[in-house]
Amino acid sequence: MPLSEFSIIAQYFSRQSRRQDVLLGVGDDAALMEVPAGMQLAVSVDAMVAGRHFPLNTSPEAIGHKVLAVNLSDMAAMGAEPAWVTLALTLPEPDTEFLTGFAAGFYRIAERYGVELVGGDTVRGPLHLAVQIQGLVPRGKALTRAGAQSGDHLFVTGTLGDAGAGLALAQGRLECSGTDGAALRRRLDYPAPRVEAGLALRDIASAAIDISDGLLADLGHILEASVVGAELEIDSIPLSSSLTCCVADVEQRLRYALTAGDDYELCFTVAEDKLEALERAAGGWDFPITRIGRITTGAGISFCHGEPLADLVSGYDHFGESDA
Amino acid sequence: MPLSEFSIIAQYFSRQSRRQDVLLGVGDDAALMEVPAGMQLAVSVDAMVAGRHFPLNTSPEAIGHKVLAVNLSDMAAMGAEPAWVTLALTLPEPDTEFLTGFAAGFYRIAERYGVELVGGDTVRGPLHLAVQIQGLVPRGKALTRAGAQSGDHLFVTGTLGDAGAGLALAQGRLECSGTDGAALRRRLDYPAPRVEAGLALRDIASAAIDISDGLLADLGHILEASVVGAELEIDSIPLSSSLTCCVADVEQRLRYALTAGDDYELCFTVAEDKLEALERAAGGWDFPITRIGRITTGAGISFCHGEPLADLVSGYDHFGESDA
Repeated sequence: MPLSEFSIIAQYFSRQSRRQDVLLGVGDDAALMEVPAGMQLAVSVDAMVAGRHFPLNTSPEAIGHKVLAVNLSDMAAMGAEPAWVTLALTLPEPDTEFLTGFAAGFYRIAERYGVELVGGDTVRGPLHLAVQIQGLVPRGKALTRAGAQSGDHLFVTGTLGDAGAGLALAQGRLECSGTDGAALRRRLDYPAPRVEAGLALRDIASAAIDISDGLLADLGHILEASVVGAELEIDSIPLSSSLTCCVADVEQRLRYALTAGDDYELCFTVAEDKLEALERAAGGWDFPITRIGRITTGAGISFCHGEPLADLVSGYDHFGESDA
Repeated sequence: MPLSEFSIIAQYFSRQSRRQDVLLGVGDDAALMEVPAGMQLAVSVDAMVAGRHFPLNTSPEAIGHKVLAVNLSDMAAMGAEPAWVTLALTLPEPDTEFLTGFAAGFYRIAERYGVELVGGDTVRGPLHLAVQIQGLVPRGKALTRAGAQSGDHLFVTGTLGDAGAGLALAQGRLECSGTDGAALRRRLDYPAPRVEAGLALRDIASAAIDISDGLLADLGHILEASVVGAELEIDSIPLSSSLTCCVADVEQRLRYALTAGDDYELCFTVAEDKLEALERAAGGWDFPITRIGRITTGAGISFCHGEPLADLVSGYDHFGESDA
């Protein structure tokens, strides 16, 4: 029996509201929300297509997780507290198994971060997901890409390259069985947005971005917006033991870490006099942060330790040739 | 030469900000906006797929217009002033002719209503558009579907059925040359959201919805949310001279008017003591309003003049069998 648009929304996407600032959720012409005094609204959108943004063999639950996680990651990079999301879900057919898994993955991470789905549109077509997220940030406190200054220290959260290696595994370009391979694939399918780090960095970082297209490409956006350069300490790039174990070739590890997207770690800059505050804040996080270089007066990225790879490309471009 | 994601955004979708409440537009991890004190945020999303929500032969300019118009229409139905939108644009390839036409249509209607594009995502895949819109409404003033009361009068803006006939024309199911046929096709391709009516109706209407899925289906949503019934005066349904001219069969006209979607007129209810205020407000509009019945204590829709059509279906369902 085909499910209608109305019953899909009612059955899978109309959970009870938990946020008091949502006056009207799914089910009218628009949702209605209350923005607290003194807060600014941060808004971002990310779309995903099967076979490009996740491998075709990705589980519905992982797809539900990931499409929200990448939007939460944008909020983290702005220092915004994620609040409300809308979902435009396009499906070839109303597939109850897909919808059940997708909703489970979507709501698990939504509840983890206190985010509420306030609007949706379900249409028939090739599998496609677009999530738009709204977050709140105290007036003047947002983290942008434009505040990095010469002399600032350059940091990343977590480890880099895992999702890139996970994609290679999913596509059969890399083989690695056991827990290390599974860990890499999990990093691709279930990225962890660094929301708590983003909130704490509001008063600490001078600029921030999330690494969706690879460190070199995303750091490049900070440099361009801030009109500065960066000196990257290649030997300091944090790599996971799973990556090191699964990828024997040192140069290939680095290629994943620098140019593969989908890690959704934060890359941020911190002035000298905020380093102590950073150390205090990071003490409470369950993921590492690593200093990987510094901001310079130049333009672009230079490398102070290790040899830059000759053929490093400048990140993932959705109209380029790389495919998920 | 292929266009990259970055150059598509820069070239086609980064026009100068015109709204003072947009502190940071396209180009960072999120946009940043200021919500004025005393205003609530209205949020809605609509997605469109080629061949389902518009005929394959629709011009890029009309697609750009329509994807924003349907979202503006949701704001109108809430009595919200449209403010900011995001666009998730999925294209098979970076087609400059499409992008130029699409951006022209999109920005023309955006500027007409003072709406600013604050975020976007462009990805490669089958043509797909998702727009999310945010509007502002004074606290407690939003028009919902839930306020209709027995005895209220039932109104619609404009004329109904034109877009349905326009779709039949576009698909070769109806023939009508000359200006009348062109007018119907134009109503399908370039719907006019009733934003000024929605704003004026804040203090006048008891409930409102926009007619995207056909009068019977959308009026049904008001009745369900308000827990009331309606008596529809079939002979009062406003039909355009183009529809009357192009469609000889009276029953078929009515079928378009009652069950075809895509008109994006407003359907709203008004208490007896607000009729004078409505008359005053509507005097300034360049489209008609028509009283088409009244709200009753019953449930569902009854017909007090004319014969209801036996085989009227309950509106357009995106997972049903109808295709654009």
